[in-house]
Amino acid sequence: MTGRAVVDVCVVGGGIVGLALGRELALRGRSVLVLESRRVGERSAANVAAGMLAPASEVDLSDSRLTEFALAAHAMYPEWCAALARESGLDAGFDPTGTLIVALHHDHLALLERLNEFQRERGLTAERLSAASARELEPCLAPGVIGALRTDDTQVDPRRAMRALVAAIAAAGGVLEDGAEVSALVRDGDTYALTVRHRESEATVHASQVVLAGGAWSARVALPAGLPSLPMRPVKGQVVRVRGERLIGHVVRTPDVYLVPRADGELVIGATMEEMGFDARSTAGMVEHLLREAQRVLPGIAELELTECGVGFRPALRDHLPAIGSLDGAGLFVATGHFRNGVELAPITAQLLADVMCEGRTDPLIAPFTPARFATVASA
Amino acid sequence: MTGRAVVDVCVVGGGIVGLALGRELALRGRSVLVLESRRVGERSAANVAAGMLAPASEVDLSDSRLTEFALAAHAMYPEWCAALARESGLDAGFDPTGTLIVALHHDHLALLERLNEFQRERGLTAERLSAASARELEPCLAPGVIGALRTDDTQVDPRRAMRALVAAIAAAGGVLEDGAEVSALVRDGDTYALTVRHRESEATVHASQVVLAGGAWSARVALPAGLPSLPMRPVKGQVVRVRGERLIGHVVRTPDVYLVPRADGELVIGATMEEMGFDARSTAGMVEHLLREAQRVLPGIAELELTECGVGFRPALRDHLPAIGSLDGAGLFVATGHFRNGVELAPITAQLLADVMCEGRTDPLIAPFTPARFATVASA
Repeated sequence: MTGRAVVDVCVVGGGIVGLALGRELALRGRSVLVLESRRVGERSAANVAAGMLAPASEVDLSDSRLTEFALAAHAMYPEWCAALARESGLDAGFDPTGTLIVALHHDHLALLERLNEFQRERGLTAERLSAASARELEPCLAPGVIGALRTDDTQVDPRRAMRALVAAIAAAGGVLEDGAEVSALVRDGDTYALTVRHRESEATVHASQVVLAGGAWSARVALPAGLPSLPMRPVKGQVVRVRGERLIGHVVRTPDVYLVPRADGELVIGATMEEMGFDARSTAGMVEHLLREAQRVLPGIAELELTECGVGFRPALRDHLPAIGSLDGAGLFVATGHFRNGVELAPITAQLLADVMCEGRTDPLIAPFTPARFATVASA
Repeated sequence: MTGRAVVDVCVVGGGIVGLALGRELALRGRSVLVLESRRVGERSAANVAAGMLAPASEVDLSDSRLTEFALAAHAMYPEWCAALARESGLDAGFDPTGTLIVALHHDHLALLERLNEFQRERGLTAERLSAASARELEPCLAPGVIGALRTDDTQVDPRRAMRALVAAIAAAGGVLEDGAEVSALVRDGDTYALTVRHRESEATVHASQVVLAGGAWSARVALPAGLPSLPMRPVKGQVVRVRGERLIGHVVRTPDVYLVPRADGELVIGATMEEMGFDARSTAGMVEHLLREAQRVLPGIAELELTECGVGFRPALRDHLPAIGSLDGAGLFVATGHFRNGVELAPITAQLLADVMCEGRTDPLIAPFTPARFATVASA
């Protein structure tokens, strides 16, 4: 990429949201350029994420509008993965087995009851299980488990999904450039001009539409004058990965830890929530905490190989809701702030933002997530 | 290395014992070839080891003849490191600050008292400290520390020592070949012929003297007919390394874990003792155990970066004592079986075995460690 490129849409950010959007727009016939400043996945939150699609398990943490959005996302996931597999030839590791939320003591049980109330209030179903029934489903659970809740929450493998998206973008005629950092963005008549540093050289990209999808780094692109910048901060998450004999089929969670099993024997254990800025260190205390909590619910983990300690940065806006829509009332869009839910929400974000960009149609599901809500705050 | 090489001494094994011996023999004017089957350090126990020089702290675990040997080793270490630095230009990280053995509860305290009795019996000095005095020496110790014992046990950085030894061997005119695997060893008149596979080709080395110093792999070289093979097994040790602000100056131990601080901010936390054969996996349970025990004595570790989980294999003979001396009453020697003490004992092993090999003089200190003791066992 040198000199000058002209495209319909430039997506700034090659995380799972940017990639899903790049694919969606390319499938709709747009000429698409996705720019990622590092290698794809290198610092993406999705690359560290476990990939739980968990509207029911986290309903107590969510704004009701976000729950509604997540449920719609959840409903479209199987078909989205199937389409992605047809386009890319790659399996994203979608697994519908379901989720067990287990209690190890009475405080956990109280949290499960409260979660279950939230679920009923929002019309979600979850099955209350005795300890014996839970262990019938998952025989490796610790003897200390005293009760469980089973939900239909599923999982996908975010790393495999991202590899499939990269292939699908190419198959649909889109272009993905990594190592491409946007240093300036200006309005240029009816289009936008982006200055891009790419492997020692500089290029200018002209695009009719631009989408900022840089996750926790989304607010780093200097915007055209007059636009408010997003109140974005990174929320550090530490995750460890172990590997060996497969001990569980369901995603297993306690209020303290989650365990996400993959078909290939990997088990993802997460995750911390830390206000540490962009501190990318795996720390002794948090790794110990995750491994200890995981062993309390699944003792067999002790004998598995510790293969990876990872750190990701969730993109958190001030209200912990995503920002999806136009920033300037014209061709400059954002799709960011997905916080703990980027993997789950990427497909629906791509589809509904593409509706806005290609058809001018804003689905009511994303209306609450307009970035305009921060304009008010910024000018207050 | 192709074709045919003729040397005075061939050392089979480039761990810390083999390297120390290679240097010692080269300094005494021998033509020396050290053969290491992997890259130097790749699977050496010393590469994972913390490097404690701890005759006093581990006296309760040691045969009295081993304690005597370790004390002599300890006494020569500072001068050995100084000489190594002059020859190589590299610092081995010797640190004489000393060791605090701390108790976190009354069972620990009882173990400290017992250790102190052993120390007095063997004429070793150790200072009994109150919790307050221990925290005066090391202010970051956990408030839960209830007592301590201070010994003069010191430390060296085994990785730095091995790098210095590699340079010192070259400086003294010795040759070190890595990726060189000995596939056969036969007597050939007054000398020995070794068949060596080295980077896709095969060579023959003729040596007047051969030393087997392959650590846990020492018994894998097929010996000339009539010689007993050593009853060697690997004892797996897991170690984790963290890095950041330096929290302690002394080596700090409890009966459950040790913490060895380096000047550069690294902190080595070890070590497990596992009968797992050559299982090279870092396991979730043991990493969690080490990090938990370490935090109990030094809570500040929680915030340090977890930089490495490592596995080493201690070479253990049936009696957990080293084997140092001639195997065949002629030119075939061993220097192995140093178990938990290879870093500490490498310099003295090199010096006293070189005395045997060059001068025919067996120091009483190594007499108990004759490999001949296994001949009796094997023929019984």
